[in-house]
Amino acid sequence: MKYALFGESHGPAVGVVLEGVPAGLELDLDAVRFDLSRRAPGKNALSTARREADEPHILSGLFQGHTTGAPLCAVIENTDTRSGDYERTKNLARPGHADYPAHVRYGGFQDYRGGGHFSGRLTAPLVFAGGVAKQLLAQRGIFVGAHISTIYGVNDDPLEDWESLRACAAKDFPVLSDEKGAEMREAILEAKNEQDSVGGAIECGVFGLPAGAGSPDFGRNAEGIFSQYLFAVPAVKAVAFGAGTAFALMRGSEANDPLFVDDDGSIRAEQNCAGGINGGITNGMPLVFEATLRPTPSIGRRQFTVNLAARENAELELSGRHDPCVVHRAVPVLEAAAALAACELLGI
Amino acid sequence: MKYALFGESHGPAVGVVLEGVPAGLELDLDAVRFDLSRRAPGKNALSTARREADEPHILSGLFQGHTTGAPLCAVIENTDTRSGDYERTKNLARPGHADYPAHVRYGGFQDYRGGGHFSGRLTAPLVFAGGVAKQLLAQRGIFVGAHISTIYGVNDDPLEDWESLRACAAKDFPVLSDEKGAEMREAILEAKNEQDSVGGAIECGVFGLPAGAGSPDFGRNAEGIFSQYLFAVPAVKAVAFGAGTAFALMRGSEANDPLFVDDDGSIRAEQNCAGGINGGITNGMPLVFEATLRPTPSIGRRQFTVNLAARENAELELSGRHDPCVVHRAVPVLEAAAALAACELLGI
Amino acid sequence: MKYALFGESHGPAVGVVLEGVPAGLELDLDAVRFDLSRRAPGKNALSTARREADEPHILSGLFQGHTTGAPLCAVIENTDTRSGDYERTKNLARPGHADYPAHVRYGGFQDYRGGGHFSGRLTAPLVFAGGVAKQLLAQRGIFVGAHISTIYGVNDDPLEDWESLRACAAKDFPVLSDEKGAEMREAILEAKNEQDSVGGAIECGVFGLPAGAGSPDFGRNAEGIFSQYLFAVPAVKAVAFGAGTAFALMRGSEANDPLFVDDDGSIRAEQNCAGGINGGITNGMPLVFEATLRPTPSIGRRQFTVNLAARENAELELSGRHDPCVVHRAVPVLEAAAALAACELLGI
Amino acid sequence: MKYALFGESHGPAVGVVLEGVPAGLELDLDAVRFDLSRRAPGKNALSTARREADEPHILSGLFQGHTTGAPLCAVIENTDTRSGDYERTKNLARPGHADYPAHVRYGGFQDYRGGGHFSGRLTAPLVFAGGVAKQLLAQRGIFVGAHISTIYGVNDDPLEDWESLRACAAKDFPVLSDEKGAEMREAILEAKNEQDSVGGAIECGVFGLPAGAGSPDFGRNAEGIFSQYLFAVPAVKAVAFGAGTAFALMRGSEANDPLFVDDDGSIRAEQNCAGGINGGITNGMPLVFEATLRPTPSIGRRQFTVNLAARENAELELSGRHDPCVVHRAVPVLEAAAALAACELLGI
Repeated sequence: MKYALFGESHGPAVGVVLEGVPAGLELDLDAVRFDLSRRAPGKNALSTARREADEPHILSGLFQGHTTGAPLCAVIENTDTRSGDYERTKNLARPGHADYPAHVRYGGFQDYRGGGHFSGRLTAPLVFAGGVAKQLLAQRGIFVGAHISTIYGVNDDPLEDWESLRACAAKDFPVLSDEKGAEMREAILEAKNEQDSVGGAIECGVFGLPAGAGSPDFGRNAEGIFSQYLFAVPAVKAVAFGAGTAFALMRGSEANDPLFVDDDGSIRAEQNCAGGINGGITNGMPLVFEATLRPTPSIGRRQFTVNLAARENAELELSGRHDPCVVHRAVPVLEAAAALAACELLGI
Repeated sequence: MKYALFGESHGPAVGVVLEGVPAGLELDLDAVRFDLSRRAPGKNALSTARREADEPHILSGLFQGHTTGAPLCAVIENTDTRSGDYERTKNLARPGHADYPAHVRYGGFQDYRGGGHFSGRLTAPLVFAGGVAKQLLAQRGIFVGAHISTIYGVNDDPLEDWESLRACAAKDFPVLSDEKGAEMREAILEAKNEQDSVGGAIECGVFGLPAGAGSPDFGRNAEGIFSQYLFAVPAVKAVAFGAGTAFALMRGSEANDPLFVDDDGSIRAEQNCAGGINGGITNGMPLVFEATLRPTPSIGRRQFTVNLAARENAELELSGRHDPCVVHRAVPVLEAAAALAACELLGI
Repeated sequence: MKYALFGESHGPAVGVVLEGVPAGLELDLDAVRFDLSRRAPGKNALSTARREADEPHILSGLFQGHTTGAPLCAVIENTDTRSGDYERTKNLARPGHADYPAHVRYGGFQDYRGGGHFSGRLTAPLVFAGGVAKQLLAQRGIFVGAHISTIYGVNDDPLEDWESLRACAAKDFPVLSDEKGAEMREAILEAKNEQDSVGGAIECGVFGLPAGAGSPDFGRNAEGIFSQYLFAVPAVKAVAFGAGTAFALMRGSEANDPLFVDDDGSIRAEQNCAGGINGGITNGMPLVFEATLRPTPSIGRRQFTVNLAARENAELELSGRHDPCVVHRAVPVLEAAAALAACELLGI
Repeated sequence: MKYALFGESHGPAVGVVLEGVPAGLELDLDAVRFDLSRRAPGKNALSTARREADEPHILSGLFQGHTTGAPLCAVIENTDTRSGDYERTKNLARPGHADYPAHVRYGGFQDYRGGGHFSGRLTAPLVFAGGVAKQLLAQRGIFVGAHISTIYGVNDDPLEDWESLRACAAKDFPVLSDEKGAEMREAILEAKNEQDSVGGAIECGVFGLPAGAGSPDFGRNAEGIFSQYLFAVPAVKAVAFGAGTAFALMRGSEANDPLFVDDDGSIRAEQNCAGGINGGITNGMPLVFEATLRPTPSIGRRQFTVNLAARENAELELSGRHDPCVVHRAVPVLEAAAALAACELLGI
């Protein structure tokens, strides 16, 4: 499967074409809608006030409720757009945003309204594509789940199993420890009150992957495949598998996961520092990674920047509707990216 | 350019085919040999005692000292191999290594001697390919350098500029602060004495990249392209751009890099939390990332594991020649991977 | 640029996502509509009676009349569908069609109405994508044109230059010799009267390509790139460059195109048997190829086939609206495919 | 599997890296050597007098006689090179060759000796790669065979079944009808006597492919996949599937292959105009195609051309050793290309 996202924040619609979908999947659209609702803003004070129905219209690839094997195209309309917000500041490159590099890259022709094609709004069709991928994986006994692992330095409990992540998915604020979740919310609201934003991290697990998928080689190793999908999610700036950056603090005797033969004859590891991958190949343990997301660049505070048209220094005060934090909304997005990556890894 | 590595640790040779090399580069083979020597083991107590000449034999793609535009194939012979070391333990899956997943993936047909195709020895032809890439970049005023940023929790000073990294390259142990370097060496030797190994991290910078390379989309964004190359390096388990995992501790007002018009009229940022990339596109600041490497899995200590043939629990005591740390040898390897990634990003 | 077509003959719409479009093209939608009208059916007795407005709705990638560099998505609605026509015969594999292999490939889940995703209707969004490609090429002085070279054994005059093909594009029946065109039309109508169909061939030229594009290697040679695009057009079964199959009747002394230095100092060939390509690389002469299209498989005559549900022999008499010939409608489609191929060849 | 050829006619060696080879194939090197010998020149008056041992040296990917799943690299040394032959004429672009476009493409840095990387010598490692592919296919009951279908207008009998092609493979001159073969040889020798060369065509069949492989979409359709491999073979200028260019002379009622249920319950066609492919998907009938090869451009006759260094008109008389025809030597090469294509089509 290959996906191609299209659309802009303030264009008529965003959408996705998913090529290579296996035929015969009875698509559970309600499950997809559920993931879309987890991503949707406007539910509480932690997110932007923009409200979108996010109803996917399927243009192709689905017939009598099943995937046909032909490319699947889903379109989600944009309705709650206020483009006027952006005219005033269109020449002021927002720090932390892609405005300046996009201006160079696209010669000033990019759609500047609401971040255009760079907008987090593009993650809605990505969640749609990931929803299809999740259902294909579930047919094979593979499940993907995630939780907020950190927000502004407040850490959630570590991931343990698939059941706890499934419970997370039903929560308005997907953390394992609601106590830590309350602290995180507080950190978000505090930032919001100060016209600021916060960053965080998401830990994700793919459960049920068989051992033996991947390769050590470029373009075919499990970490490389996953990272390609994860870094395509806006705001992701770091990706770490298993013990991740903590490997730099460890000795081999700690980091090596001892193997044993389980009661059912399968080979398992006593711990999972490797995050389910050795030498680029899955080892049958859960594939676990953490992705770090930068704080939302759009903040109300006065910032120093440049005017791209006048090519001179300037100051910027953004109004408009912004997310003080996108990490909680990004949880289903990273699940989607991971599900698509798992499909590629398995040759689905 | 695309590269394909081939070879096994104890086969006749390792090598690389590099397709799409621009014609007309006058290849400085001494510069490539210098990087190969930085990677080579056997120089001191910090590395395995295996000694290899690592002289690249060029089979194609070079004519009268210049690249021809045809695929460039370089072969490096294996000479100092002691395969007998591996026969005794060939059925014992080494914890932390790919032995078990490779056994599943390749049905037991993989070359088990010295790690076979999974061996760090494959990084020699990768350094060759990266050496070609570096010279292509240098023609465009782009330079790649790296240093050890952490070993077993000991941190080097942070990267500042290209000159200091160039000085690093000449060092036996490539750190910015030799004082910190001494602590790191001590940590390595201590681990070695205890028949153990240590992990670490490498920070790398690509200097001189123009603004406007990359795209926000899957498969074309700068972070995704780089991560694909970096995770293809054995032992790399985490990749972080700019402020990286520290973004999870930050507010937007700290993380946003304020822009200003420089004296020469160019647009620059006052800090570089973004690591030179916004929205998947380079912004003209140095592209900076950190890669974390797990501790060498091969350690002398007794470890618990399984016998893959008998499918029963077992204990393992490795003899043979092992690296107590690969981080210092991996510095030119990550430079090579970064140089190849930069070429892809720029369409070279 | 990469394109992904989606849609089915009797679904809500067909469309295309075009990734990697250079920013800043002022898209001439009327030129695109003109090519769509050249492809459209329903104009005369030579084509199916189905009538479609074929108005492209652009969902993304265009802002203030210019391409933005973000993926360009165009959707064309299906309006004149009569699905009832297909229910009666849905289990009868139409000879010459993909019904049987698609049944195996997609496990019976494919959309069978009107050929589903296999329908020639998918060539409408392909013409859209090709229209964008043509305009990008025209900016560089490169032009693509085609004419019917054969229908049912009646041959048009051979292609000479770009001007005559441009004149062809304005014709209802795009041939160089209207006399031969009249014979061809007669052959089509005769077949139609006998509830049959006819095949033919299209000759296409790409004018203005610079010398030096392509490579001899797999995946990068000019013929390979073009053929990939051309064989993706339904009904195309043969592709020949330059003298094509006539090379099998020739000697080297006839086939070799003698070179000379032209008055303007450029190097040109005295004839163009090579079709503008030597060793997989363009030589500056027009890139010329001929594509052969099989006769429309949908014919009214009684045919022998199998019932896929009952797995037994059967007879089939198709009603519905069919094209007695698709060659004349396919001329702008092959131009579109060639324009997209030329863009890939040039790295646009 | 992906293959990358490397090497030049007069460099130290030619070779191939084959990535993604399934592990566990017990490689029959004698079978590969047999195909290499079918391709080898120097056996009789019909080919160049250059003699090469063509013994493949395997550098990687094979262990204890079986493929390991790691990249397979084979190198074939060049021994019988006479570079002096080429110095005299190095600035004279040989008509029909890639000399001029390569000069533009590679800025004059290409290896001009013996055609360099453009040389037919590169088909030796291609035959090696195809030999591996053939053995992988044979494990699945799939066989690839070919014969000369035309030389200088003399046609062989049409292909009927796999057995007759297998018999062909053992022949010095691989035709079905030895009578026609004698005529062809005469045509070759006549051309040779006149310091000229002849072109021809090769018909190839892939037998035993299951129905249901491929897709109608770009990059995934059977014809597109095959054509990509076939046009990467030097001298191939046309590729036609099934009835091929004859479709332009046919009616639908002739071209449609009627289906029936065979005695064993399988669905088959009564004829095979489709060449085993409908809508880009295999239909279970033999996949049949014909590839046309241009006459060898290297001829002894005086030719008009240009001097690339002086940029002036010139005359050229080639000495050196040339093939008056390459079609008979190309038979195993096209089998190799077809075998690699079939592997891609089947996801091997």
